[in-house]
This record gives sequence, C-alpha cells and structure tokens, in this order.
Amino acid sequence: MSAPIQGKPAVVLLSGGMDSATAAAIAKAEGFSLFGLTVDYGQRNRWELEAASRLAQFLQMQEHRIIRLELGGLLVSALTGHVPVPKDRRPTEIGQGIPVTYVPARNTILLALALGYAEVVGAADIFLGVHALDYSGYPDCRPEFLQAFEHLANLATKAAVEGQLRFRIHAPLLGCTKAEIIRRGVALGLDYRLSCSCYDPTPDGLPCGRCDACVLRRRGFQQAGLEDPLPYQTPLL
Amino acid sequence: MSAPIQGKPAVVLLSGGMDSATAAAIAKAEGFSLFGLTVDYGQRNRWELEAASRLAQFLQMQEHRIIRLELGGLLVSALTGHVPVPKDRRPTEIGQGIPVTYVPARNTILLALALGYAEVVGAADIFLGVHALDYSGYPDCRPEFLQAFEHLANLATKAAVEGQLRFRIHAPLLGCTKAEIIRRGVALGLDYRLSCSCYDPTPDGLPCGRCDACVLRRRGFQQAGLEDPLPYQTPLL
Repeated sequence: MSAPIQGKPAVVLLSGGMDSATAAAIAKAEGFSLFGLTVDYGQRNRWELEAASRLAQFLQMQEHRIIRLELGGLLVSALTGHVPVPKDRRPTEIGQGIPVTYVPARNTILLALALGYAEVVGAADIFLGVHALDYSGYPDCRPEFLQAFEHLANLATKAAVEGQLRFRIHAPLLGCTKAEIIRRGVALGLDYRLSCSCYDPTPDGLPCGRCDACVLRRRGFQQAGLEDPLPYQTPLL
Repeated sequence: MSAPIQGKPAVVLLSGGMDSATAAAIAKAEGFSLFGLTVDYGQRNRWELEAASRLAQFLQMQEHRIIRLELGGLLVSALTGHVPVPKDRRPTEIGQGIPVTYVPARNTILLALALGYAEVVGAADIFLGVHALDYSGYPDCRPEFLQAFEHLANLATKAAVEGQLRFRIHAPLLGCTKAEIIRRGVALGLDYRLSCSCYDPTPDGLPCGRCDACVLRRRGFQQAGLEDPLPYQTPLL
C-alpha cells in the first residue's frame, strides 16, 4: 500500500479478520495515522493474532499493540472454545438469532480498551469493522449500541471532560454486505491473503472453510465476482 | 458476618480497597448472592489483590474471580507505576481537578468486564464502590457516566436484548463521604483490617499513610470517630 501519511491519530480494533482489516484500510485512506489494538482474549483461533500483526505491518501502522486479557473461562462462547463451532450452515441460516459465537459484552470490552488507548495516544477517532451481517445477530454490533458507546466515551474520560478530545466511533462497514466490504478492500489495495477469518482453523492455520466465518467470506468473494486468495480444504456448499 | 443468603446473583467489582468492600457488604445485606470480580491490571499495589481475596472470603462470596489484563504499558497512570504517587497532600487539596491516579477509561473497562461476567452468571445487578469524593475528581465515577453505562449494558448484551435480564448499575456509596462509608461498613460488621487502600505500600504490604488514599481513609476514620485498624508508619498531617 502507499506510504503512510502522518495524519490525525486513530485507534483501530484489529482482530486479524477481513472486516477489521478493511475498516483499517478505510481509516488509512481517510488520512488517519493508525494505532492498531488487538486483544488476545484466548480466541480459539490463535492464527488470528499473527494475521493481525501481518496486517498491521502491511497497513504501515504507527503502532500495533496486542494486549492479553486472561479471562480464565469468565466468558463462555464458541470463540473461546467452550461451545462447539457450528459447521456447514448456509448463509441464510447464519443470520438467524444470536449466534453461539456471541461473546458476552465483547464489543463493550474491546471498545473500552480502545478508548483507554485512544485517550493515551490522543486519538479522538476509533474504528471498528462491524457490518450489516453482524448486526443482524450480535447486539453489540448495532448502530444504537455504537451511539451509546460514543456517548459514554465522552462522559468517561479526562480528555473529553476537559475538552481536548471529542471521541467518535467509526464503523465504516455498517451498511455493507460482505461482497461490498471485499470490493472496497480490494479497491484500496488490501491483500486479503493476510487476513484470517476462520473460527476453527487446522493446527497449521489453514481455514476450515465450513464455519460461519468461512462460509460468509467465501460467499462474499463469490458475490463480489472475485477469487478468495485463501486455500480451503473443502468446496463451498 | 452472618451466613450467606442464596438470593439473586449480583456481580461486585472488588478492588481490595475499603469502598468496594463496603459496596459488597451493602449488596450482601440487601440479600444478593455475591459474585466478586477483581481485575489485575498491573496495579502498583500488589497487596490489593490479596486484600480482595480475603474480603471475598470474609463476605462469603459465591464466587470470586481474579482476571489478568496485561496492558503492557497501554494505560499510563500513577496507579500502574508510570507516574509518581503524590504524597502528604491535605484532604482539601486532593479534591482539586483530575488526579494523576486517573487511569484512562478504567471504570469503563472494569464495568465492561463486570457486564460480561454478569451476563454469564445471570446477574442483572452490578455493584461498584464509587463515591462522592471520587466523582469530584474522576470523570468515570459521576452519576451521568454510570447512567450512560447502564443504558449501554441494556443494548450491548444478548440477555438484555432477549429480555432475560435488565441490567442495573448500583453505586450505593455515591452520595457518601468517607466517614459515612466507614460508619455504614462498621454497622454491617465489615472488618476494615482486611482492606488495603494505599496506592504505594511498603514491600511488606504496610500502608504508606501518606498517599491520597491513605490520607482520605485516615481522615475518614477520624471524622467517623472510629479507629482505623491498619498500622501506619507516619502520623496523620
């Protein structure tokens, strides 16, 4: 990607998946200087953290922090390995109800950490990669949640109360389908080979191709008329 | 204290200091069954965590979780050892402006973790020990912050969205001075010898007696007409 612009700082929540990578690429294209934050909360998919580091480098982030949150089984979810990951569901089934990959209060926790980091580096802008498909299922991906968090952020912090920063939560993919996200990322030069979306990869880090994240990603590439650069072990149903 | 009542579950943020211990004792007296949450975010005062465990036992909590958040220098504050702790300030000086012991987004992060825990254990009620003196200084101890968090909690979680829980944030000490907190705790049978309020204790865990937390605690006992059971190395100014 093009050389970094030393613009206003923005904190980007970077999971290693394709959505947050695309949100980061958009923030960069808007001229922000990126401070990436990845939270290692014991995700079953350890390759996500490596993907986040690769993406941070590719996106020429000013800084990339990985912080470890040892939940010790506090939060129960398919993403932290306490519940089996569903496989081979069709895209139409995936959007029904709140998924088992829901992690209690996840985005509240991630945004709270991003807010602390943002205050320290003097960033008023926080980006995250939630999108239309997410908010059909996850309560903490809905626009009303993001607005409530922005309101909270401006009450919670010294920098806001003293008038130095007015925090803004950016979810540039909120109205986008997976295919639209992919098209935007590709247009911005993002290399999706670096991102890892799978909930349950092989021990070598290969995507399973069958979990909800893989199914939605593959279908997204198909609908965008583009080829997913990741190698999959199974055909798309 | 009296035998535990198997009442409705409540999550209590327990730091090891006297305020959160008093909030927990109040929750217990109100008939809640307590689930204590202590977050080890690299506090300079490591004795606080031991104090939290002792208090959890004394208060006959149903469960006490200590989770570790490795911030790796992400959040800069006197409480995480990056800025010197001020000493020998008089109580009248302490309430001026936002203190150096302010940790960016601390209560947002703590409440977010408490919310996740509460959802997992099915607790609609979350207690924390913020009080009048805090909210003269810390933005994330003010009533408007707590209201905004309660609003957020009820948008953020599956349990709230599906109508199983309606989250409430309880700050029973919000209107109390330190002396009033102490009187309430003593009336409920709380043993303040178990709590540790100091920001900068000796390597043996003895309170310095001179940081803001020690000064306010000692003055509180004095004003309540009670004796602080902790041994101090220095006289109160």
